[in-house]
Amino acid sequence: MSDHGDLAEPRPGEQPVDDDAVVDQAGDSRHDEDDRLKTDFVSAVLDAVEEGESERARELVSPLHPADIADLLELTPSERRGEVAAALGDLVGAEVLSELNDYVRDGLLDSLAPEQVAEFARELDTDDAVAIIEDMDDADQQAVLDALDPEDRAAIESALSYPEESAGRLMQRDLIAVPEHMTVGQVIDYLRDNSDLTTDFWEIFVVDEQHKPIGTCQLSWILTCPRSVAMADLMKREQTLIPVDMDQEEVALRFQKYALISAAVVDGSGRLVGMITVDDIVHIISEEAGEDILRLSGAGEGDINEPVMDSYRARVRWLLTNLLTALVASTIIGIFEGTIERMVALATLMPIVAGVGGNAGSQTMAVTVRALATNQITGTNTRRTILREMRVALLNGVTVAAVLGVGVALVFQNGALGAVIAAAMMTNILTAGLAGAAVPLAFDRMNLDPAVASSIFVTMITDSMGFFAFLGLASAAGLTG
Amino acid sequence: MSDHGDLAEPRPGEQPVDDDAVVDQAGDSRHDEDDRLKTDFVSAVLDAVEEGESERARELVSPLHPADIADLLELTPSERRGEVAAALGDLVGAEVLSELNDYVRDGLLDSLAPEQVAEFARELDTDDAVAIIEDMDDADQQAVLDALDPEDRAAIESALSYPEESAGRLMQRDLIAVPEHMTVGQVIDYLRDNSDLTTDFWEIFVVDEQHKPIGTCQLSWILTCPRSVAMADLMKREQTLIPVDMDQEEVALRFQKYALISAAVVDGSGRLVGMITVDDIVHIISEEAGEDILRLSGAGEGDINEPVMDSYRARVRWLLTNLLTALVASTIIGIFEGTIERMVALATLMPIVAGVGGNAGSQTMAVTVRALATNQITGTNTRRTILREMRVALLNGVTVAAVLGVGVALVFQNGALGAVIAAAMMTNILTAGLAGAAVPLAFDRMNLDPAVASSIFVTMITDSMGFFAFLGLASAAGLTG
Repeated sequence: MSDHGDLAEPRPGEQPVDDDAVVDQAGDSRHDEDDRLKTDFVSAVLDAVEEGESERARELVSPLHPADIADLLELTPSERRGEVAAALGDLVGAEVLSELNDYVRDGLLDSLAPEQVAEFARELDTDDAVAIIEDMDDADQQAVLDALDPEDRAAIESALSYPEESAGRLMQRDLIAVPEHMTVGQVIDYLRDNSDLTTDFWEIFVVDEQHKPIGTCQLSWILTCPRSVAMADLMKREQTLIPVDMDQEEVALRFQKYALISAAVVDGSGRLVGMITVDDIVHIISEEAGEDILRLSGAGEGDINEPVMDSYRARVRWLLTNLLTALVASTIIGIFEGTIERMVALATLMPIVAGVGGNAGSQTMAVTVRALATNQITGTNTRRTILREMRVALLNGVTVAAVLGVGVALVFQNGALGAVIAAAMMTNILTAGLAGAAVPLAFDRMNLDPAVASSIFVTMITDSMGFFAFLGLASAAGLTG
Repeated sequence: MSDHGDLAEPRPGEQPVDDDAVVDQAGDSRHDEDDRLKTDFVSAVLDAVEEGESERARELVSPLHPADIADLLELTPSERRGEVAAALGDLVGAEVLSELNDYVRDGLLDSLAPEQVAEFARELDTDDAVAIIEDMDDADQQAVLDALDPEDRAAIESALSYPEESAGRLMQRDLIAVPEHMTVGQVIDYLRDNSDLTTDFWEIFVVDEQHKPIGTCQLSWILTCPRSVAMADLMKREQTLIPVDMDQEEVALRFQKYALISAAVVDGSGRLVGMITVDDIVHIISEEAGEDILRLSGAGEGDINEPVMDSYRARVRWLLTNLLTALVASTIIGIFEGTIERMVALATLMPIVAGVGGNAGSQTMAVTVRALATNQITGTNTRRTILREMRVALLNGVTVAAVLGVGVALVFQNGALGAVIAAAMMTNILTAGLAGAAVPLAFDRMNLDPAVASSIFVTMITDSMGFFAFLGLASAAGLTG
């Protein structure tokens, strides 16, 4: 529940601070049609800060949502971020920090004293506080923890004891759990009478004496029922529980599959230890779905805010591996140097066979990797998926080989050369279809991430097969220029 | 609100049907650790159907969540789906249909009479009913509409009047809106007394006399407040409104950015016409994030359930385009045929320069496309993003060129050849960095989808530059074998 912190808890009698009119991002002067901050607006803020007019900068920024203030800081050149954040003062609050890109946040936090970071952590739910301090180095982290109250510290330390990217890190401890014998009326009275309870929740968990969840109740059901109804009669008994050590990617898929708004997190013995809400999950769903494209191309984290040296290290490793696999293709060409010497046109044409084959492989690989990432492929349909890709490859192969073969035969006035390149193209597209489906499936079976390793292999296979089939067939056919 | 249909509305006194113990998917015998149905389980169901034992099949399937029944049908070979669905009878209800993959659903619906489809549509919220019938052809759609009650028909026809993939199609009309002068107590009484209201909602919208939203109130705030508090004092006035014609991708980004659970949809004059909830958005977030990988490789819809001929048509168009661009690279090689004849080793080495450059281009392109898709790049940081990519490219270029240059010089005992390939590699990686960032940015500026068109262009550029730089430098250096 990271998003509307202060505004989200208007206790009775407390008038909400912002009495502005309705905010419709699309219609205002600060946002473009994609909810992005306009360049003019960002420049106006940066200029105000530069000219030392912090007050004007704060006036411009204060109507913004915390997510937009975070965007503003991300759009500020990195060397000016500290200065801009300082000028904006308390407008850059805990909510803004929890919305910031990891790299940008780490950069800002580095310049703060542990007490200041602790101040931010205190204002946030456990999950958001953990997100802020989990990437700090041990000494800084300890300094922040020491500056916290014992209760907050215990909650955060407990969260940090779970593996990174697990449900235990994502969950918040503030939740509402009631015994099943309570009635709707009793639950409402309990909520009204205990002002120290969280006011941010979407479902109430019903637990037994051992604090194990036995049912879930949407707030809307409670609000539409008479006070006399027992929770046991109202709750849904069929529930989706999240083990505390479950990986966040699995948590995200489970939320998505069962369309959850919130879910109970349970420990090894089945006791309720926390709650995860969908708003903390949407960015994980988006990240997990988006990162396959980065992994397939070896782009590492692929974040435009990542330090240049980090990006370099991630990417150069991939390029050097690619260099090695390119040597395989190169070696295959080397075998046929004699053939190329007799007919140098082969050197002109051979990249076509390899390149189009590589593209066909990428297509199949992208489809397979996505289907694996969304849990669409199981033992039941693995064979069917490969066969399906081979059928598509056959159709693609026939079409592309025909066009290429006829074109080459006409341009080079050489029917044999046309036949050779068509046969090679056909072979390579079929190979690409098989490799593009089978390689990711094999990696997945070996519990390796299919997105990370597949493309290096598939490209090596389609390059090598492209050169081998074309030059080999040309050699066998005894083609000479 | 598509997911827990029947179970989701247990009115007082009505005992939930499923009195089973708590369902923890990870621990049961039907699911593997990724919440996927086990192959053994699917086989058992299919075998039962095959042997005519529908009753056994239904017993196996009945404990499943609708999302799992949908998975079961997707995992069933397409030619057997009608038979399995028939055997399962009313277990394949409206909820299951709305969870089904589009292609699989369309296949099943084709075999049903309009009255049967109308029966399903009646049970669903408008948004889910629309999703089911929007892809039918006009005659079938009309037949279904005719079979509906006037009220349901009007709601669905109104939704269909909005553009495909717009907020108007996604929204549901059942929502709770109250005037601001009402108190918490009055709202609760209103909800309790009107049994025809929806029981599935997460927030209450506060509207003025013209039915324009002026605030939003989480149910948890209502439940934690005394009855006397006025909605006007409790609601959050700052709200994110969704224009009814907004594209679903923008809706998804807005939900994600502002961490929304539900949002009011307004028409052109600002009146509240519907509500979108986050559970209808999560699959769009995932789809939109995942489809870039498919577009970048030209894999079309990239759905493993897509008919083979549809996949063929989408992909072959891309491969034929790729064939054209490969001709450009091929033509460039052709210019240097004389050089290759003098030193055939150049033909062996040239794919390395082109291939590694292509990979470097893919990396930068993946990063840029992702950043554009998540609205991270605006006019403010476009130049900075390109410069950042160029810096990474410089570091990558120096490293890879050094390794390749030294290696080639040693293996071929030819320092000049090593220098030439190093310089070509450096040039091509820098070109790849520039093109990989600038091409998607340029397409985005032209309001074209950067994921669709970029990779064809970038590959053409890195291939051509790879061959041109290497062969051109070799020629200029007067290398001979």
